[in-house]
Amino acid sequence: MATRKIVIVGGSAAGAKAAARARRLDQQAEITIIQKDPDLSMAACGYPYYVGGFFNDRNLLLATPTGVTRNAGFFHKTKRITALVETEVTAIDRQKKAIVLHDLKTDATSELAYDKLILCTGARTNRPPLPGLELDGVTTLLSMQDTDYLRTIRDAQQVQEAVIIGGGLIGVETCEALQLSGIQVTMVEFQDQILPFLDWELAKLTENHIAGKGAQVITGQGVQELRGTDGKLVAAILQDGREIPCQLAVLAVGVRPNSELAGAAGLAIGSLGGILINEYMQTSDPDIYAAGDCVEIRNIQTGRNVLAPMGDLANLQGRVAGENAASENRATFPGTIQTGICKVFDFNVGASGLSEKTAKAMGMTDYETVINAGSDKPGFMGGKLLVSKMLIDKADKTILGYQCVGPGDVSRQLAMAAMAIQGKLSIDAVANADLPYAPPFSPAIDHFIATAHIMQNKLAGRFKGISSMNVWQKHQAGERPFFIDGRGPDEYEQLRLGIGEKLIPLGTLRERLGELPEDKNQEIICFCKISLRGYETALILTAHGYTNVRVMEGGIMAWPFAREK
Amino acid sequence: MATRKIVIVGGSAAGAKAAARARRLDQQAEITIIQKDPDLSMAACGYPYYVGGFFNDRNLLLATPTGVTRNAGFFHKTKRITALVETEVTAIDRQKKAIVLHDLKTDATSELAYDKLILCTGARTNRPPLPGLELDGVTTLLSMQDTDYLRTIRDAQQVQEAVIIGGGLIGVETCEALQLSGIQVTMVEFQDQILPFLDWELAKLTENHIAGKGAQVITGQGVQELRGTDGKLVAAILQDGREIPCQLAVLAVGVRPNSELAGAAGLAIGSLGGILINEYMQTSDPDIYAAGDCVEIRNIQTGRNVLAPMGDLANLQGRVAGENAASENRATFPGTIQTGICKVFDFNVGASGLSEKTAKAMGMTDYETVINAGSDKPGFMGGKLLVSKMLIDKADKTILGYQCVGPGDVSRQLAMAAMAIQGKLSIDAVANADLPYAPPFSPAIDHFIATAHIMQNKLAGRFKGISSMNVWQKHQAGERPFFIDGRGPDEYEQLRLGIGEKLIPLGTLRERLGELPEDKNQEIICFCKISLRGYETALILTAHGYTNVRVMEGGIMAWPFAREK
Repeated sequence: MATRKIVIVGGSAAGAKAAARARRLDQQAEITIIQKDPDLSMAACGYPYYVGGFFNDRNLLLATPTGVTRNAGFFHKTKRITALVETEVTAIDRQKKAIVLHDLKTDATSELAYDKLILCTGARTNRPPLPGLELDGVTTLLSMQDTDYLRTIRDAQQVQEAVIIGGGLIGVETCEALQLSGIQVTMVEFQDQILPFLDWELAKLTENHIAGKGAQVITGQGVQELRGTDGKLVAAILQDGREIPCQLAVLAVGVRPNSELAGAAGLAIGSLGGILINEYMQTSDPDIYAAGDCVEIRNIQTGRNVLAPMGDLANLQGRVAGENAASENRATFPGTIQTGICKVFDFNVGASGLSEKTAKAMGMTDYETVINAGSDKPGFMGGKLLVSKMLIDKADKTILGYQCVGPGDVSRQLAMAAMAIQGKLSIDAVANADLPYAPPFSPAIDHFIATAHIMQNKLAGRFKGISSMNVWQKHQAGERPFFIDGRGPDEYEQLRLGIGEKLIPLGTLRERLGELPEDKNQEIICFCKISLRGYETALILTAHGYTNVRVMEGGIMAWPFAREK
Repeated sequence: MATRKIVIVGGSAAGAKAAARARRLDQQAEITIIQKDPDLSMAACGYPYYVGGFFNDRNLLLATPTGVTRNAGFFHKTKRITALVETEVTAIDRQKKAIVLHDLKTDATSELAYDKLILCTGARTNRPPLPGLELDGVTTLLSMQDTDYLRTIRDAQQVQEAVIIGGGLIGVETCEALQLSGIQVTMVEFQDQILPFLDWELAKLTENHIAGKGAQVITGQGVQELRGTDGKLVAAILQDGREIPCQLAVLAVGVRPNSELAGAAGLAIGSLGGILINEYMQTSDPDIYAAGDCVEIRNIQTGRNVLAPMGDLANLQGRVAGENAASENRATFPGTIQTGICKVFDFNVGASGLSEKTAKAMGMTDYETVINAGSDKPGFMGGKLLVSKMLIDKADKTILGYQCVGPGDVSRQLAMAAMAIQGKLSIDAVANADLPYAPPFSPAIDHFIATAHIMQNKLAGRFKGISSMNVWQKHQAGERPFFIDGRGPDEYEQLRLGIGEKLIPLGTLRERLGELPEDKNQEIICFCKISLRGYETALILTAHGYTNVRVMEGGIMAWPFAREK
């Protein structure tokens, strides 16, 4: 049997993984990686942490866990993989089964034959049509070059002010990195919230946290111009005319697939601009696979194609493409449930599965949501806050989505949620899940289980919830429901909403029923710090004949609006 | 309708939860908790952390998250629940539907009628028939009194040496607490390993860690006597005659259900000594429920009854019992997959589902295991080690068990594993799971996914593994397989096994094939730090015609035996 020639275009996450996997399955194959950048196998998700000074050794972004740089020599020596860096693939000749290479160092052009080709061409930053993009001081954070540039800025300590255009994952991570570098950051997001994978309330809580760390967050505003003096950036001009002085601007308005090479070769491209692949990561040409940020993949829950440019998915896809290219189609990649997480200062923020926003956009109606606030560990172990939102299918009670933000252990919550969604677990199963419990790791009833419990109570009609958003809207609209804060006086002194609420500590409620509205049909909204006492308050009122009592979900801890103190 | 009388015997985890749940479902019911101890709703799992000085405010063990002590006044005021403390229930009259109370403060006896009774009588420490148990200095760690006693010892700094009898969860947590208090601890375990929910290898790694922190661990040895002078403990005498000087001994040889009250009332008791209940947490008397450490519950995976005295399960069971007692049987508790976790110094240690030991004991044969060592995060984010063992059903590839130990984020691993096992996910599903990834939380390919990948390779015959235990046995038996350490010379200088291995760095292997045995059928065992390079070494050798090549699973990081350096 002839030696199989496997050629991989792109040598970052998906490409490097595909090559390594192909080699493990076929020791004889000729495997070649073509990489436009000078570096290989970059840990791109680590760029913001190097910029932000979490570590100082640049080589760690390019090294194996034992410190060996993954350069062309490494790939050759350990894996017998040829890696051609600073080399661009300019065309694919599908008839001839060959690609055309352009060596950027020598300007030479050559051809390379393949039996199987894997396209891992990645994505590039969207560049909005904005005057001033060419100014000195305007950058992205997508490459090692960008990273080196921003790190130099950090180390030089010359830049005072920076604007980040876009409040998605990269925007938020860059915001943290620069703010921690001593730069005054303003993050500008065109939509009405940052972190679009979250629903508005949890995004707002995150925004509040970022603002608390000194960075300015402006939502619902675009940048209309970057203004310079002598070719150097001096300010960003917002659509409303506001001028934000800055010497640095980072474009972070999302990425789009590098699918031009594939498109020019006649491979099928999807409506989102990504290369279309099947479950084997195979393009419309059976000898060509594609993986990573350049492809569209299936959202398992909705059945629709999405762009999901995430480092973990790129690696998993690369592994599948590499296996199939080296053998026959037997490995499959099922798709995504769009799980994501990020750290933003002392907040951890993430989501898995459907948000309410997505569910609504899809026209779903038979779902239920609940917001829960609680601690990730017992108080005596220094437990920290988690605020989460769960979305379920009302028909069969399966969990469809889970979002979680806060200083607590969000990672554990989302890892569980991702597994629960993938395993199609219902809230009834989660309600009695046997989880790893000990005080250093969780409260006796884990936050995820507690959220399922509240959802059970809600479905059973015992817990009648109202979102903080609806409460705020009522308040803004001048409605005056009877608000009961069920906490203690000390707590009330420290922190309170100031929306006209009456403080009735739960322990005094049964003696103070006379202070409640005489009209048993009056709207009453109960809450407390996390709305557990609010729930008990509501149960007591209902038992006393009040017919229109609700609990504000998540209580004060999940309240994203202005407070009195 | 008459007011329902719900009586709950026991007011710690299950009892307090059952009472609270019953109240939320029925605002009219008369709910009474009878508690023998003076305290209520104690966070018993937190005792070792108070003893160890993780926090200093004793009241935190008894308080709500907002600092209110959960005493009888609290239960009355906030929940209209009557709590009778320092009161013992001496008998249940099932004909009359009443219990007999004995007030320990006044010595008075009385009767209390119930419509529904919930038994949450807990468990007590096993007391082996050991001379010297009565000595001053001998204790358990199961009650607030024990906790206060040990905390006083910590604070007084008089005790120099302590012996812990038993190396289970409580033993290990107490070991940490006392050692961190400046006491020289010796933990003695009769079985050949500590932490019986783990398989031997992972238990041994944990034992090594404990020993590295200065505590002595002796396995395979019982204590035959506690010896005293003037009524005070001075030494523990082991079965082999060794004398361990100590002024404190903590009995931690497991607990057994307090089921005598139930048994005397004629309720069905299981062969393990626990009260028998159905899925509604209902005993053999339909008006009597039971929950918590006093019951036997079903292991969901094996179908067999087990004792699972864990605080989280007690709470979940109490919730179900409370709901059913307050309404009709509608809530169910499915059982346990025996998930557990603990912190031991800088190690986190846990398991979910079946261990190999359990699988073997049940006569299972159609399973496969794999051990994996890896990092919980990228190196540049300060990733820490995880060593895990996965057990799957070979027939359908579902994950049956997962154990994980190490300084890394074991909590996330086990939370995922518990959900994956409960969701009956196969390794093929986990291999492409969409998990929350960002560098502060995990590597691009999470350790749990990587473990599933290795298992896939093993099932496909690509990864031929051998356990460290088998390698050690071969070595001890004088067998001399050809061992290849595939790491670099620097790594080898720092740390090595010293079992006759030859250092052949992976990058040099293809040039050094001449140094390998001429006999292509010679047994060769490859490894490296975590055995990824060991795997690649094995693949290259196999491609060069070697027929008997295996990879030592988990590499040097999972090696629990003595090393050369």
